[in-house]
Amino acid sequence: MKIALLGGTGNLGVGLAVRFAMLGHDVIVGSRKLEKAEKKAEEYNEILSKMESKAKVIGLKNEDAARKSEISFFTIPWNHAFSTAEQLKDVLADKIVVSPLVPMEKKNGFFIYNPIPEGSAAEKLAGILKNSRVVSAFHNIPADKFADLDAKFDWDVAVCSDDEDAKKIVIDLINQIDGLRALDAGPLATSRMVESITPLLITISIKNKMKDLGVKFV
Amino acid sequence: MKIALLGGTGNLGVGLAVRFAMLGHDVIVGSRKLEKAEKKAEEYNEILSKMESKAKVIGLKNEDAARKSEISFFTIPWNHAFSTAEQLKDVLADKIVVSPLVPMEKKNGFFIYNPIPEGSAAEKLAGILKNSRVVSAFHNIPADKFADLDAKFDWDVAVCSDDEDAKKIVIDLINQIDGLRALDAGPLATSRMVESITPLLITISIKNKMKDLGVKFV
Repeated sequence: MKIALLGGTGNLGVGLAVRFAMLGHDVIVGSRKLEKAEKKAEEYNEILSKMESKAKVIGLKNEDAARKSEISFFTIPWNHAFSTAEQLKDVLADKIVVSPLVPMEKKNGFFIYNPIPEGSAAEKLAGILKNSRVVSAFHNIPADKFADLDAKFDWDVAVCSDDEDAKKIVIDLINQIDGLRALDAGPLATSRMVESITPLLITISIKNKMKDLGVKFV
Repeated sequence: MKIALLGGTGNLGVGLAVRFAMLGHDVIVGSRKLEKAEKKAEEYNEILSKMESKAKVIGLKNEDAARKSEISFFTIPWNHAFSTAEQLKDVLADKIVVSPLVPMEKKNGFFIYNPIPEGSAAEKLAGILKNSRVVSAFHNIPADKFADLDAKFDWDVAVCSDDEDAKKIVIDLINQIDGLRALDAGPLATSRMVESITPLLITISIKNKMKDLGVKFV
């Protein structure tokens, strides 16, 4: 598939870009600035060639990355994501958009979920991208460990959407990644519960001196 | 320890009562009516004797059960728990109270967390029981499977409290149960995130045709 990682310059970005590229997908890294996107793509291509993969990632401005792709991941800090969505709503019409956004804040040394009036970041995003097929997923993946391509993990990914077909496509895509199991977590209204697991994971990590916690439903 | 299971007549009740009794704790099942509590205690004692345990559970009215115990579990449906707390607040003063309460509702065939103004059921309970040591735990345990004393499981229990000593006591108590690992999940303000995992677990169970899902932080 043609996959864009918008603002895909963080740790979730590298983990997704390299893995999807190695699975044979066409990966485009997006950024506000073309130069930044191209620089990131170059970095990812170096990793790919070190891993003896012939796959190539390309870098484009967010708008061009979104236009050329079937699925766009919003790998953008949650508080910047909504203005980016406003700018891209036309080019993202009818396309699948994945929201891994988690609104959270640090408070007295621990992390709490920051409820927003729309219920969840995914619902707010869907309210802006009215003509897109918004799927909520990838919130609870510890980005640092996911960025390590040699890391072994066994995590679940809860996937929510009001668009059943789009949800199925994203579930199939996630299940291609070794160590991830995608689970149907219902409609977008469930997303607030999935998103709120992330600050909990961080708090539990800190309090119990654990690292890189993901979640497993067993 | 002396443990009361207030309203401990549901599935979480039997799972806790028999397991704690077999571990050597003094377990009292509480109910609004003495007869109901005694009947439940009799049932649990039959299970205990079938398991070749000499332990005995006793049944008392909620108020007496709470008075005689060091730790009281609110194994009561969440929407009835707060009126019970009002009635018991004097007798529960200075004691440890465990809240496994989860405010949730079914909506269009799936379950959602029902946010309450106080932030979480545990914080609301703590607001009523101002002089008790409220600890939030045991939300994400699938009660049916937990009621099966032969069942094998491997679940995490996230434990929240503003009283660090009380939290430690509850964590140690939970860790005595085979198949459960208690984790410090921070202050009571974290409880909303732990509570909201329960409706998500039920929705994931339904959507993916899975059963008795608990959670593991890995």
